[in-house]
Amino acid sequence: MHIRKQRLLTPGPTPLYPPALHAMMASDIHHRTEEFRNAYRSALADLKEVYGTANDVLCFAASGTGAMDASVSNLFSRGDKVIVCSAGKFGERWVDITKAYGLDANVLKVEYGDVVTPDRVEAALKAEPATKGVFIQASETSTGVEHDIQTIAGLVKNTEAIFVVDAITGIGTMPLDIDGWGLDVVVGGSQKAFMIPPGLAFLSVSPKAWKFADTATLPHYYFSLKKEKKSGDAGESSWTPATSLVMALGEALKYIKKTGVANLIENAQLLALATREACEELGLELFAKRPGSSVTAVKAPAGMDSKVIVKGFKERFGAIIANGQGSMQGQIFRMAHLGYFDFADMFGIVAGLELILRANGHRVELGKGVAAVQRVYESAQPKKANA
Amino acid sequence: MHIRKQRLLTPGPTPLYPPALHAMMASDIHHRTEEFRNAYRSALADLKEVYGTANDVLCFAASGTGAMDASVSNLFSRGDKVIVCSAGKFGERWVDITKAYGLDANVLKVEYGDVVTPDRVEAALKAEPATKGVFIQASETSTGVEHDIQTIAGLVKNTEAIFVVDAITGIGTMPLDIDGWGLDVVVGGSQKAFMIPPGLAFLSVSPKAWKFADTATLPHYYFSLKKEKKSGDAGESSWTPATSLVMALGEALKYIKKTGVANLIENAQLLALATREACEELGLELFAKRPGSSVTAVKAPAGMDSKVIVKGFKERFGAIIANGQGSMQGQIFRMAHLGYFDFADMFGIVAGLELILRANGHRVELGKGVAAVQRVYESAQPKKANA
Repeated sequence: MHIRKQRLLTPGPTPLYPPALHAMMASDIHHRTEEFRNAYRSALADLKEVYGTANDVLCFAASGTGAMDASVSNLFSRGDKVIVCSAGKFGERWVDITKAYGLDANVLKVEYGDVVTPDRVEAALKAEPATKGVFIQASETSTGVEHDIQTIAGLVKNTEAIFVVDAITGIGTMPLDIDGWGLDVVVGGSQKAFMIPPGLAFLSVSPKAWKFADTATLPHYYFSLKKEKKSGDAGESSWTPATSLVMALGEALKYIKKTGVANLIENAQLLALATREACEELGLELFAKRPGSSVTAVKAPAGMDSKVIVKGFKERFGAIIANGQGSMQGQIFRMAHLGYFDFADMFGIVAGLELILRANGHRVELGKGVAAVQRVYESAQPKKANA
Repeated sequence: MHIRKQRLLTPGPTPLYPPALHAMMASDIHHRTEEFRNAYRSALADLKEVYGTANDVLCFAASGTGAMDASVSNLFSRGDKVIVCSAGKFGERWVDITKAYGLDANVLKVEYGDVVTPDRVEAALKAEPATKGVFIQASETSTGVEHDIQTIAGLVKNTEAIFVVDAITGIGTMPLDIDGWGLDVVVGGSQKAFMIPPGLAFLSVSPKAWKFADTATLPHYYFSLKKEKKSGDAGESSWTPATSLVMALGEALKYIKKTGVANLIENAQLLALATREACEELGLELFAKRPGSSVTAVKAPAGMDSKVIVKGFKERFGAIIANGQGSMQGQIFRMAHLGYFDFADMFGIVAGLELILRANGHRVELGKGVAAVQRVYESAQPKKANA
């Protein structure tokens, strides 16, 4: 008999930063007191610092989809022409949201695993100068690809449109120079690189986007950017905040600031690199054409259902890795790197993967994938490896 | 020197049930696993039992206002004629929400402290047979009044309209026979009688209300009753759920079921009665014309700002009681009874109140208010007093 510890190895929820988790015990706090206002103000200020922007950064009691909803219902009007880049399940969510609100969306769709290239966005913008918004995922969690946000931002910047980026798994895993590149709206979620449980959604708003809020006519109430901005400036949230999660967020942000956002991103990049190298050693094929560092999607070996690997992790090691989503279910599995993951996690994941593959008939030389991870560890400067 | 324990004596957030708080530590759980589905299914089933209805009961990652928003954006169309009963700050929230979504609202407004009487609703319904909805608070938290929900429900029941009840502080503090009376939508929130931190909103939907969902045309996405119903039936939430709060909710609901909802309500009623008797002994005037049992609003003695009392509790005893809201600030203070409050809390609150009043020039015979609470305690059957 051996113990199997429960481990979250998924691209959200991610492993929790323990002091942040424990901070939730202090949630017998009233949200209209100076104590809470100080905690909330401090969390919002740290959030802005972690976002790395001079734009306003707002927080909602909701999951990330709530902030995606807010970006549409607050900044657009029925019939507005927009471009939606759809490279997977979360791109499809933008399609659904813009459709729900009656926007006139030109959907730039690619196969799962692929990315929407800047030239397609450029052509679409040229074809429709009245385009008011471009929607995209920084990191498409369902397939592990990363979009070329900087280049696309450069294209959108010189038009009348705003660039709305779902960076729910992008923040903390890839560089996102919000102000330098011109990302008008950037959506984040608590259960990703922020290392805390789900229930808070974040959203940054550029001056250009704020102007959209002045003329947009779609109805909304709970998700109100203007109201939330006004409340946030007063150290409050418009409606009762999810206090326990705000306390957790404050603690996690302190850790992220101490670590440094650049180091957190480098950590994800190193773990993603190590995962890719391990996969190569193990004869596994990567799924993403332009792989990002939030999650690495890998094709199951020929003839093996990826469910076997997901189930293997669960039953053998108590660990939860992600299956493919939607039509990718059974074909790929996904290993996450965003937030509170380290090399020791990666050693364990790859060692486990080797055993599971071998037990299911895939030829594996034990330790070969782990060695690839170890080499990436060694190649990283000690200073960087500890980041 | 003496210790001053932090105590939440407010009508939300309310005192937390400790095992529910601790259950949040188990939030390293993935929401698309059978473990979580079981926890979520069980919480939804218990929630339905505590609601006491055969209607569907849905849960959202949001504060209560989110579910209020959902009831409008999912069940109505722009221009729909509705009646809004407004007896305080939360009645005004219905006014704001129905306005934000372009409904044609006939607002039945009363002064703070008063209630909207059934005859006014009856007249308004007769004057406009095309009325599609009646909005109300079961308990108006800002003033402590309770509306006559049963009688008004009887009036709405025989019309084409649905009855939408904000029972955020009503559930668990007053009888609400959802099915017997015909309450079509009943909104609840986690940080009230449910004894857990804020961040979850609840909403029950009657068959009559579901028919409205079929023809309603207002846009919405994050808050989708139909989608949430479908997800809930599969043991999931539509979007990433606030797992930590769902774990807490499950634990709190077990306690509430064990206690019995009727007993929980009786507890609030006894504490409210005790508070009213204590106020009479202390020469304080109640604010609510039809006082409910979720919160007792009391006028500050003539010439005294109620802030003095709120501040006194905070500085002398570390306890947070509620000031008046909006235009009532400075004039009233509010003592809560909803959820995890007991007689010992009430002894402490009234004893503290006596000291604070006396220190601020109000004539008080120490212990006189407490004795009134003690007498209510004695008058309650031991079985009931332990409820």
